[in-house]
Amino acid sequence: MKLNTEEIMEMEKIKRINLINSVSGIKPANLIGTVSNKGVSNLAIFSSVVHIGANPPLLGFILRPYNEIRRDTYQNIMDNYYYTINHIHLNFVEQAHYTSAKFEEEVSEFDMCRLNEEYIDDFPTPFVRESKIKMGMEFKKIIPIEINDTSLIIGKIKILVMPDEATDELGQVDPAKVNNVGVSGLNSYYSLKKIGQFPYARKEEMPDFSKL
Amino acid sequence: MKLNTEEIMEMEKIKRINLINSVSGIKPANLIGTVSNKGVSNLAIFSSVVHIGANPPLLGFILRPYNEIRRDTYQNIMDNYYYTINHIHLNFVEQAHYTSAKFEEEVSEFDMCRLNEEYIDDFPTPFVRESKIKMGMEFKKIIPIEINDTSLIIGKIKILVMPDEATDELGQVDPAKVNNVGVSGLNSYYSLKKIGQFPYARKEEMPDFSKL
Repeated sequence: MKLNTEEIMEMEKIKRINLINSVSGIKPANLIGTVSNKGVSNLAIFSSVVHIGANPPLLGFILRPYNEIRRDTYQNIMDNYYYTINHIHLNFVEQAHYTSAKFEEEVSEFDMCRLNEEYIDDFPTPFVRESKIKMGMEFKKIIPIEINDTSLIIGKIKILVMPDEATDELGQVDPAKVNNVGVSGLNSYYSLKKIGQFPYARKEEMPDFSKL
Repeated sequence: MKLNTEEIMEMEKIKRINLINSVSGIKPANLIGTVSNKGVSNLAIFSSVVHIGANPPLLGFILRPYNEIRRDTYQNIMDNYYYTINHIHLNFVEQAHYTSAKFEEEVSEFDMCRLNEEYIDDFPTPFVRESKIKMGMEFKKIIPIEINDTSLIIGKIKILVMPDEATDELGQVDPAKVNNVGVSGLNSYYSLKKIGQFPYARKEEMPDFSKL
């Protein structure tokens, strides 16, 4: 299959959306938790969480256009500054998927999808109890992406909670150890199996690829 | 393990970088191909490629600070506007990893890591022949992320090449069908196994989670 921009744009809309949402490779599967000014908790699945930097610890995610549909996650973050990012694991992937259904404003996706709220220390926004790796985030910046009316939301990690055994000797999270999932497109989920860990790449220590 | 911002910042530097680079979940593994004004091709591994939109088809990626080290990918895109994004598969993951070593400016990572350049139609920048899913990108926008001197680079898909069998009936890429890998942190790689595909989430069609 070889498609140019014009051929992509001529595709049937749903097929085009499915295709372009899946051409970047495997995506992380996270639930973002917020609370509205009326005290209603909200939970939404996002596949666009991305590392921004480690000093200070910053993560971003891409938000769809404001005016497209109701955007509870956006409004709640703008109103209250705090949100949680919770990893999705094999044992509740279907519940997590259904947080994307359009519920009434006054109901919580925690209730509708049978996921439990968990409050940690004095962090003002609920975490997902079922999630093993979770972060309390403080909103830092919204960066408009004018080319298609999306935005990059950046937050700082205020609190990070996970089992000690989720990291390896280098301090790196091993997502397979907590049965994390990845997502492709809008609705396909994948389990992860570690296949290799290579040292920091130095040209003096390269394997001999000439034998290939 | 429970860490607040201050405790994260007090960690030993490499451990902190490893930890924060791996807390967002599994990341896509892509090689970005460019060419310099001197005609030297460049290949660099990126784990931050993110979906920006399907209308028009846009992808972004996060670029580290300009002044941190030599940034061939950035300079080449600024000079020549075109780049390629190439998925990484199981059979060349170690070669792909070593594109991150610091080679001299006049040598190509294609040569050093024994990956083959492939030119497709009149697209001016080389693709990775070993990659089954690859895109020719046109630079559209660089958005500064001033909070930590990184940038979001956005490009439009000009050409998309992949095997017909890489997509499912919904038009979605199934990364497991082409042995795609994901990455955690800076150097751990994962194979993918499809575990479920759920319909577009409508609240009227929700499974009965009350039995859980």
